[in-house]
Amino acid sequence: MRIGVLGTGMVGSTIATKLAQLGHEVRMGSRTAGNERAVAWVASAGAGASHGTFADAAAHGELVFNCTAGEVSLAALEAAGAENLAGKVLVDVSNPLDLSHGMPPGLFTSSFDSLGEQIQRAFPDARVVKALNTVNREVMVDPSKVPGEHDVFLCGDDEAAKPRVIELLESFGWPAASVIDLGDLTAARGMEAYLLLWIRLSSALGTGHFNVRVVR
Amino acid sequence: MRIGVLGTGMVGSTIATKLAQLGHEVRMGSRTAGNERAVAWVASAGAGASHGTFADAAAHGELVFNCTAGEVSLAALEAAGAENLAGKVLVDVSNPLDLSHGMPPGLFTSSFDSLGEQIQRAFPDARVVKALNTVNREVMVDPSKVPGEHDVFLCGDDEAAKPRVIELLESFGWPAASVIDLGDLTAARGMEAYLLLWIRLSSALGTGHFNVRVVR
Repeated sequence: MRIGVLGTGMVGSTIATKLAQLGHEVRMGSRTAGNERAVAWVASAGAGASHGTFADAAAHGELVFNCTAGEVSLAALEAAGAENLAGKVLVDVSNPLDLSHGMPPGLFTSSFDSLGEQIQRAFPDARVVKALNTVNREVMVDPSKVPGEHDVFLCGDDEAAKPRVIELLESFGWPAASVIDLGDLTAARGMEAYLLLWIRLSSALGTGHFNVRVVR
Repeated sequence: MRIGVLGTGMVGSTIATKLAQLGHEVRMGSRTAGNERAVAWVASAGAGASHGTFADAAAHGELVFNCTAGEVSLAALEAAGAENLAGKVLVDVSNPLDLSHGMPPGLFTSSFDSLGEQIQRAFPDARVVKALNTVNREVMVDPSKVPGEHDVFLCGDDEAAKPRVIELLESFGWPAASVIDLGDLTAARGMEAYLLLWIRLSSALGTGHFNVRVVR
């Protein structure tokens, strides 16, 4: 599949690399076409990998990952262009971290909103599915980094978009039974708020290689 | 031990009942001395159970549980009286739920603060430990309601207060290895924000009898 990955940071390159390894034609997008990290990524990722502006990457993708930092996600998607996102599944991996007060970060959204919903409102023709934002980037694409059974969450307003994301998650190594559908996109409020607990757990455990298993 | 339980709602009565069953001398506190639910609770809880005002309950307790609804917690503790809380371990089970916009609720705290911290700031001589707010009230006092291994969190600024709370949690049935100390009281931001995810999980799973296991 042709996939656009917006963002050249650690999350973007981890996801883009995994997708390229799985045989997808991945285009990494950044603010400027000649982004050094995107150029380096293409050189290492090999066949099927390309790079360009946010708009180039979004236009290329049948499906698009938003892996930009939460604080610049709306601007990056604006640059990608509503017309390049329309009708496409947009997997939103971002977190609305507010680092302006130092560590530990808070969120720049209120608890009655989420970045996932802000993106959906700004791009009503995109089919936003929130996913993967609750785990470390290495765990995202290789759940076996954490031993045993543990879960990943997903939500969105477009029911037909979800199976396409679940299929990708399964290709990353997530068993279907470990993907918990939390419902419509307002559930992104919970998925994003969990980051505040994730940060504390990571600090207490001394690692980002952990996750939660929902036990019932 | 003499324990004060502030709050006559479902959380308060569940915790007070468990504590009375464990042989503690429990006084349930409410806004008015003749609270019907407190009277009914005393009648059912038997020997060692008593009731009174918030101040009566706090004065009685060597340790105090705040089981009031988050939106009235500060007022309830004000009524309990700083002098009756001074030097005592105050186990804060409350959640800052904001139901003013209907369901699902948000939080009335910002992500840079927590109700646990607000309580500690308002009552600097109390030894606030945040605990148990991340599970359903029945699971709080009987973790076997959820099969298998799953975890409960705790945080606070007073390191000497934590072992006393852990001891109580163990008496409720939580194995010591399932109690995760998240550090100082600012971690209450994460424990309270998790409620937004808890609500979605509860809705998706159709039960409040679930919890998370931290896998690493």
